[in-house]
Amino acid sequence: MYKLIAKKNTARSGQIKTKNGVIDTPFFMPIATKGTVKNIMPEELESIGAQIILGNTYHLWLRPGDELIAKAGGLHNFMRWDKPILTDSGGFQVFSLGARAKTNFGKSGVKITDEGVEFCDPENGTKHFMTPEKSIEIQLNLDSDIIMVFDECPPFPASHKEVEIAVERTTAWAKRCLKYFNQKTKKIKRPLLFAIVQGGVYEDLRKKSAQALVEIGFDGYAIGGVAVGEPREKMAEILQWVLPILPEDKPRYLMGLGRPEEIISAVMAGVDMFDCVIPTREGRHGRLFLRKNTKKIIANNFYETININNEKFKADFAPVDAKCDCLLCKNYSRAYLRHLFAVKEPLALRLASLHNLKFYLDLMAELKNKIT
Amino acid sequence: MYKLIAKKNTARSGQIKTKNGVIDTPFFMPIATKGTVKNIMPEELESIGAQIILGNTYHLWLRPGDELIAKAGGLHNFMRWDKPILTDSGGFQVFSLGARAKTNFGKSGVKITDEGVEFCDPENGTKHFMTPEKSIEIQLNLDSDIIMVFDECPPFPASHKEVEIAVERTTAWAKRCLKYFNQKTKKIKRPLLFAIVQGGVYEDLRKKSAQALVEIGFDGYAIGGVAVGEPREKMAEILQWVLPILPEDKPRYLMGLGRPEEIISAVMAGVDMFDCVIPTREGRHGRLFLRKNTKKIIANNFYETININNEKFKADFAPVDAKCDCLLCKNYSRAYLRHLFAVKEPLALRLASLHNLKFYLDLMAELKNKIT
Repeated sequence: MYKLIAKKNTARSGQIKTKNGVIDTPFFMPIATKGTVKNIMPEELESIGAQIILGNTYHLWLRPGDELIAKAGGLHNFMRWDKPILTDSGGFQVFSLGARAKTNFGKSGVKITDEGVEFCDPENGTKHFMTPEKSIEIQLNLDSDIIMVFDECPPFPASHKEVEIAVERTTAWAKRCLKYFNQKTKKIKRPLLFAIVQGGVYEDLRKKSAQALVEIGFDGYAIGGVAVGEPREKMAEILQWVLPILPEDKPRYLMGLGRPEEIISAVMAGVDMFDCVIPTREGRHGRLFLRKNTKKIIANNFYETININNEKFKADFAPVDAKCDCLLCKNYSRAYLRHLFAVKEPLALRLASLHNLKFYLDLMAELKNKIT
Repeated sequence: MYKLIAKKNTARSGQIKTKNGVIDTPFFMPIATKGTVKNIMPEELESIGAQIILGNTYHLWLRPGDELIAKAGGLHNFMRWDKPILTDSGGFQVFSLGARAKTNFGKSGVKITDEGVEFCDPENGTKHFMTPEKSIEIQLNLDSDIIMVFDECPPFPASHKEVEIAVERTTAWAKRCLKYFNQKTKKIKRPLLFAIVQGGVYEDLRKKSAQALVEIGFDGYAIGGVAVGEPREKMAEILQWVLPILPEDKPRYLMGLGRPEEIISAVMAGVDMFDCVIPTREGRHGRLFLRKNTKKIIANNFYETININNEKFKADFAPVDAKCDCLLCKNYSRAYLRHLFAVKEPLALRLASLHNLKFYLDLMAELKNKIT
C-alpha cells in the first residue's frame, strides 16, 4: 500500500508497504534478472542503499523454474535477499526473446491469441505457453512482493490498429490476472499487484489504457512499452497523457528507464519507481557515472560519464570519483580499474557495476530529500 | 628471515619475516597473476585467512608495466593488498608463453642465450628481452616482499644434456640476480631473495643445482620445474633428493603445486610454501572441495570434490559444505550455486573460488597446528 508523504509541484515522495518491508519513494531497482544482480552480492546491494530489486518472471520460470524456487522457500530465500522484490510479468521477454527463437530454430517464434502466448525458448527451442494466470502463478511461486500483470507489449513502430488490439488485450489480461491473483492470495500474505499501461505513442490509446486499468483497480500502475525504440522526446508526452489519469494514492512505475536526466524528469513529473540495466550494463563496459562538482541536480548537467578504457586514464592514480565512497572509489585508482578492464579481470565488472549502482541509488535518495 | 618454531619428523612450522609482516609456515599463496586474485577482493582474501599472495613478474611487466606500478606506489598500493606479496621471476612464463607466440605470429617464440631470453608477447607479437637483472629490476619496481631469481625452466620431457645446460644457466643467472639485487637494495628496505632449484627428473642434476645455489646463499629456496608434465610420483623423489641439501634455517617453496594430498605429502617432507591455480581454476569450473566427516587429514581420503553442474544438485538445498563457514556455504544452497553456473552468472565464479581458497587455507592452518 502506498502513502504519499510530500509533494513539490507534481513530484512526490512517499512510502510503499510490502510484505517484506517499507520502501521510500522515489526509488530505483537494481536488476536481478536471473536471481542475482550481475557480479554483486546482496550484502553489497544493501550497503549502497538498495531497497528493492527486480527479478524476471520469464527467465526464472525457464531456468531454474519457479517450482524449484518455491521449494527453496521463494526467491528471497534462494538468492538471500530479504528486502522486497518486484517481478516483471514476462510479457516483454516473451515477445522479444520469443521472436529471437524464430531466427535460431526456424519456427514461428511467438503466437499470440486472446488465451495467451505460445513461444519458443531461444536457448533450446522448447515450446512454452504463457497466460495471464500462468504469469501470476509463477510470480506467486517466486514469492514476489510486487507482482506485475501479464501485458502485451507491441514493438515500436506499430500501427494504431496494432497497438489498439494490444491495449484491449492488455486490459482483458489484467482483469484475468486480478481475478486469479485474488483467488490465490486469499490464504497467504498478500503481495501487491500492479497493472501496466500500454498504448504506444498514441495519446488516445495511452489514455484509454490508463482509464480502463484504473477503473478495474490495482495496487499500483506501471507505464510500459517505453524505451522500446520510440523517439526519446515521446517519453515526456506519454507521462503527460497518463500520469493525470492515475490515482494519487497509488504508486507509479516507469518501466525500464533510463538515463539519469530521464529519471529526474520523470520524478519531477510524478513517477515513483524505476528500473534500468544502464548502471550495470554500462559499468560492465567500463563506462562510469561521475558527479560534477555541483550540489544542484540539473538534468543533463550535474554528471558526466567517463570511459575508463581510454588511454588517458592509464597513469591516473586518482579515484574514479573522489566524492564517492563506494568500494571502488574508496580503495582503487582509475589506473587500476583501467588495468583490470585491459586484462579482462572480472573484478573490473564488479567494481564498476557497484559504483554505477551507487550513483543511481544516491541520485534517488537526493531526489527524495529534495521533495520531502 | 626464517624462524623454525617446531618440527615433527621432517615436517616444519615456523615464521617468515618480510618487510610487510610475518607469515606463519606452512602456507598457501592465492594467485594474483595480473594484480588481482580472479573474482576476489583483498578484504575477502584476508577474511579467509590469506597471509600472502603471488603476483606475476612477466604479466605485470607487459601489462600495465612495472614502472607504472612503481608510480602507483608499488603493487601493494596499486591493488590494495597490504600484506606480503611474492613475485615469481617470469622464467616459467617467458618460456611457455613465448613459445605460444610462435604459433600466433610465425616468429621464433623464444631465443635463449647466456645473456638472457628474447621472446614475443603472444598477445601482440612485440619483442622483449628478459635478463636476470631485468627480472630483479621489475620485481623491485613492483615492491615485492619475496623476489624470485630468474631461472631457466626446461619443459618435460627434456634430455639430461638439455637439463644440465639449464641447471648451469640457472646457477649463473642466480648469481647475477643476487649481485644486482645487492646493488639495488643497499638503500631500501630489503625484500627477500629466493633461488630456484632446477634439474628436471634427474637426481644428479637436482642435487647439483641445489648444492650450487646453497653455496651462493639465498634467503630461501624454491623447487621449480615440477608440475610441468612429469609423472606425479616423481615429485616425492625430487623432494627426497633436494630437501636434505637445503639449509634448515631457510624456507622451502614448492612452486605451482598442487592437489591437497600432494601439499600434505610435501609438508610432511619439509616444504613450507605453496602456490597453485587449482582452487581458483577448479572453482571457476564448478568443481568444489569438500571436507569429509573426519577430523583426520589423511592424504587422498579427508576430502572429496563435487561438480556442482551435475544434475543431481538441481534441487539440493543443502549448503555446499555444512562444516564450512565461507560466504558461499553460510548463505547459499547447492541448488542456487548450480543455477548461477547454469545461467553463466559471474557470481558463481566468485563464490566457488572463495570457497575453494578457504578450503586450501584452512588445510594449511590445520597442518601448521598439527606440527606445532
